[in-house]
Parts: sequence; structure tokens; C-alpha cells
Amino acid sequence: MAAEMAEQPDALARLLARAPADAQRVAQVLPRPFAGTVFLARGSSDNAAVFGRYLAELCSGRPAGLAAPSLYTRYDADVDWHGYLLIALSQSGATPEVVTTCTAVRSAGAAVIGITNEPDSPLSGVVDLLLGTDAGAERAIPATKTVTGQFALLATVAGALGTRAGRAGGSGAIGAALAGLPGAVAAALADPGPARDLARRWQDIDRLVVAGRGLGYAAALETALKVAETTGILAIGMSTADLYHGPIAAVYGGARVLLVDGTGPADADLDELRRLLTSRAAETATLPVQAGLAEAAQAITAVVRGQQLAFQLASLRGTDPDAPAHLTKVTATT
Amino acid sequence: MAAEMAEQPDALARLLARAPADAQRVAQVLPRPFAGTVFLARGSSDNAAVFGRYLAELCSGRPAGLAAPSLYTRYDADVDWHGYLLIALSQSGATPEVVTTCTAVRSAGAAVIGITNEPDSPLSGVVDLLLGTDAGAERAIPATKTVTGQFALLATVAGALGTRAGRAGGSGAIGAALAGLPGAVAAALADPGPARDLARRWQDIDRLVVAGRGLGYAAALETALKVAETTGILAIGMSTADLYHGPIAAVYGGARVLLVDGTGPADADLDELRRLLTSRAAETATLPVQAGLAEAAQAITAVVRGQQLAFQLASLRGTDPDAPAHLTKVTATT
Repeated sequence: MAAEMAEQPDALARLLARAPADAQRVAQVLPRPFAGTVFLARGSSDNAAVFGRYLAELCSGRPAGLAAPSLYTRYDADVDWHGYLLIALSQSGATPEVVTTCTAVRSAGAAVIGITNEPDSPLSGVVDLLLGTDAGAERAIPATKTVTGQFALLATVAGALGTRAGRAGGSGAIGAALAGLPGAVAAALADPGPARDLARRWQDIDRLVVAGRGLGYAAALETALKVAETTGILAIGMSTADLYHGPIAAVYGGARVLLVDGTGPADADLDELRRLLTSRAAETATLPVQAGLAEAAQAITAVVRGQQLAFQLASLRGTDPDAPAHLTKVTATT
Repeated sequence: MAAEMAEQPDALARLLARAPADAQRVAQVLPRPFAGTVFLARGSSDNAAVFGRYLAELCSGRPAGLAAPSLYTRYDADVDWHGYLLIALSQSGATPEVVTTCTAVRSAGAAVIGITNEPDSPLSGVVDLLLGTDAGAERAIPATKTVTGQFALLATVAGALGTRAGRAGGSGAIGAALAGLPGAVAAALADPGPARDLARRWQDIDRLVVAGRGLGYAAALETALKVAETTGILAIGMSTADLYHGPIAAVYGGARVLLVDGTGPADADLDELRRLLTSRAAETATLPVQAGLAEAAQAITAVVRGQQLAFQLASLRGTDPDAPAHLTKVTATT
């Protein structure tokens, strides 16, 4: 896991170099007229999908959302997908329900883009365009370099969907923002101290809430999943807004809270939550992310900080981060 | 909370009596051509939204999804919503971000249906059609009768969106299915033993996963939220498929699992998960739901079982289920 985390700056640089060509290929498969974008994934890929869902709605100016695979694998849903773009993400390209759902949705009229690290996988046979994360073989069970690659590719794809981006900046701005990403990730990786210190402080916890909002919400989800799978801690990622609507009771009940700050327009929500929790003696923490990055790059760097925390917690707790008990690399859900 | 739970059979019967008229009103506001349905909510209302999201995609034959409010309250997203139906749910009708997002999305072209228990609330001013849950004043902070009312109304709304329903049965079948609902909820409420016994067994836990799939997934989410807000247990609702993709490590790490069985096409997934977890000595439980109900009614009855568990856990742990510490009835997220 550590070795694969260390490959991320180079892997991200390769994807950024390819971004203009990828954007052109995306533009060629877009449905016209364009009704909206839907993302299909599980696990870490689904956290990348949340990132893509926000950026796609912002950039394309049409609604975006997440698929419910069981409607296609269990309920035989009969849905008209004309006008929609489906973006399916799977590190292995082999999760059966992702392949089955792609097939159903594409035959119902959607254009389908697949994002995978395995270009010869079954996913490649059921899409209109395949984009590879090109991260090299990933052997550790917790996905790291393939996940940040998915995040980066989704920023490129979103930029190709349009240029209406609200306060996150236009598609050009999103592309430019990622230009500083490999360096920021390298800097985070060269600075393992903050995650190590926090892991020492939280070495024995069994409950963790990771809270973010906006683009940082996806990083919160991914950090929670990485911690859960490497350590067995019950870690849940949550929007700060969702946290207020009831689950915050678990924080007052003793769950720790990691706040994923950003530099985006939702950042004030993190400050407000921090003030509230601190005033009520709940225990919170934050991992540093380099200042001066645009928000999309900051969120991806926060994902790397989360990987560091998961790795350090696993090491301190004596679990094997490369092969957590009972987990497998390809999760064959249907 | 117990008193309001007890009002559910009557409240549901009132809504079912009104269903044909509600369906007609929904049909009158549908956009044509119809691109899709998006749900907007937080907290318990958002769990009802998940239920509605599945049924809407099944019945309407067009994609459905959940809104990301921060795109409108924080990012000033510029999105074309023509062709879409937005369904906003808020018990109080007063959550600022729900009202703000409704306003933005409606002015961008969507037709908007509001579902609330407070027909004179701010939500009423920003929708094309308001449907009341008509549950009477809800004083306990954990929402109960308003939530099952939202679930029931959403089955009616989905039925009005179309008749392509895959294996969940046509819209007529969904309406008919709910006909047995008030009686099934009354029977569950008259039988508090299973929830009480499970609460005694799990009285001291601090981590709980509630797993379901398909229509039962929404009941799992709502059960987890009800347990979290009444007790401070870190409880998380999850699709069985998502659980396999990493978070199951937390179950092997000691979190208990409540399985929300149904009678739908995804039920075999629950059986498979139960077998796996039992074979690995993880602790699971199930609360009984009356046989012979169609799946939508079964899911709503499972929500009531979850309320019973939350109430019993709170009572045994000495927390006040009516007014959990630090929570308020109207959560003013923006």
C-alpha cells in the first residue's frame, strides 16, 4: 500500500499529460441533446463517483446523480436512458453488477464511459469509450493510486461536459487547477508526520466520523472507507449538513470527527462545525493540505492524507494494510 | 415518540384514502417530455427520498437521483433543470437549504413537488404542488409518523409517474400493496417483544451496521439514523453490496449487523450476507416483518420495526428518546 501510494505523483502526472486528448474523446461520445450524467460504481470508485457527480453537474449545467445497480441486477427495471451519459468506474473492470448494469443502461440508450485500471477487463466490452487510470498493477487490497487517478480523470471528463461551473471555476480552471496536483501530492507524501501523530492519538478508537462538504465530501467518504477497510474501525464519511440531521448524536456519544477542510465555497461549513463540536468538548482533528491549490486538487490531496492516516492506523494497530482480513481485491457483488 | 409511533396506522390510512386524488394532482404537474426525477431532503426525509428514488425510476421508466444541495447553496451552480421533476421532502418545511435549493431548481425549469407535515411552512411557497403528510403535530425530535407518511406518499407519487415497474410490480400493484399497510404497522406496534429482546441483547453496543438492499435499503438507512439519534450509537445504514466493498471489515472488527429482510427480488442478497457473517462468527440479527405484504409495504413496516428498536435501546440506555441531547426538531442547515 505504501509503495503504491508513493507512485501517485507520477501516475497523476501521466493522466494530466493525457487530459486534453481524453477531453476530446469524451466530447465525441456525448449524447445530444444532453439530459444528464449518472455514475455507476462501488467502494472507493463510488467515492470518486461522488466527486465526479458534483463536478459534472457544475460543469455540464445538467443534473447528475448516482446509479442504483440493484434496479438493473435485481428488479429488471425498464428505463429509457436516451440523452444520458453513464460513467462507470471500476478499478478491476470486473465487478459483475457494474458490467451488468452498464450493459442494461447502454442498451436502453445511454452513452457509456468506462474508467478502469484494467483496459482488457469485461467493462471494456460494454462501453462507448474506455479511459484507463494507467496506474500500473495495484496489488494492495485498499485502492490508492487507482482512486486518485479516477478522481483526476473525472475532473477531466467533467471539464469536457461543459463550461458552466459556478463558483468552482470554469472547466479551464478545473484543468489548470490539477496542474499543481502531482507536486502537492508529492509534498503530502513527503510529510507523513501529521497522519502519524493523529494515528497515535486515535490508535485505539473504534468509531470515526469523517466530515466534509462540497468537493471535500468525496474525500471524506474515501478517507472513511480507507480507514474502515485497513483497520476495522467503524468509520463513516458524511456531509457536514447530513451530520447535523441526527448522526451528530453519535459524536456526542464518543465518536471522533476528522474534518476535511477545503478551500472551496463550502469551507465555512467545516469551520462552523469545528466551532460547535469544540464548544461541546467533542474531539475533532484535521489533516493539513497545501494552501493555494484550487478546490478539485485540494480534495484529491485530502484523499492522499486519508490514505496516510489509514496506513498509519493499520500499522499501529497491527493489522496488515496490504491485505486486511476477509477482504479481496475484486469484490464480486452482483 | 411512543405516542407518535402509535398514531401511524391511522395516519397511513388517511394517506391511502387520499392516494387517488394525490396521484391525479401529481400527474398534472409532470414535465413533458419527462427527463427524470430528483429528490431533495436531509435526515429522515432523505431516507424516504431513497425509497422514492428507487420507486420513481422503476415506475416512471426514467432515471432518478438525489440532489446535492450545496451545489445551489454554496457553489451557485448554473444548471438547466427543464424536463425534471424535483421532489423536496421536509417534515418542517423550514430547512433553509431545502427551501433555497427548491427555489433555484424551480427557477431553472424543474417542476417541484413538496412533501411536508407543515402546509403553511416556507416550502409551500416554492413548489408547484404541495402534498401534506397530514400526520398531526410531531413533537418528539426523532421523526416517526411523518417519515412513514413520506414513504407512503412517495409510493403514491411514484405510481403516478408511470407504470413500468420491473419486478416491483406495476403502479397499480404498488398502490394495492400499501392497502394492507396500516394493519401491518398496527400489528408490528402491538408486538414490541422482538425489538425489546434485541435491545436487551445489544444494550451496550457502540457500533451498528444496518444492511438492506433494494427497497429495504431505505429502511436500513432510516433504522440506522433513528438508532443513532436516540442513543448516540454510531449506526450506519448500508446497501449489502456496499458493505462487501470494504466496510465489512468493521463488522469483523466488532460492529453488530441488523439485516433488513424484505420480500423483494433483492432478498437473496440478505440471505447470502447472513450466511457469510454467521460462518465467520459476526453477530447479526433481524426484526420480523409480517409475511404476505408487497415489498413497498414491507419496507415501510421495517421502518416501524427500526423505530421500536431505537425507542427500546434509548429506554434501556437511559437516554430520552423524545429529546436526545444536543438535537433540535428543525435543523437549520444551509
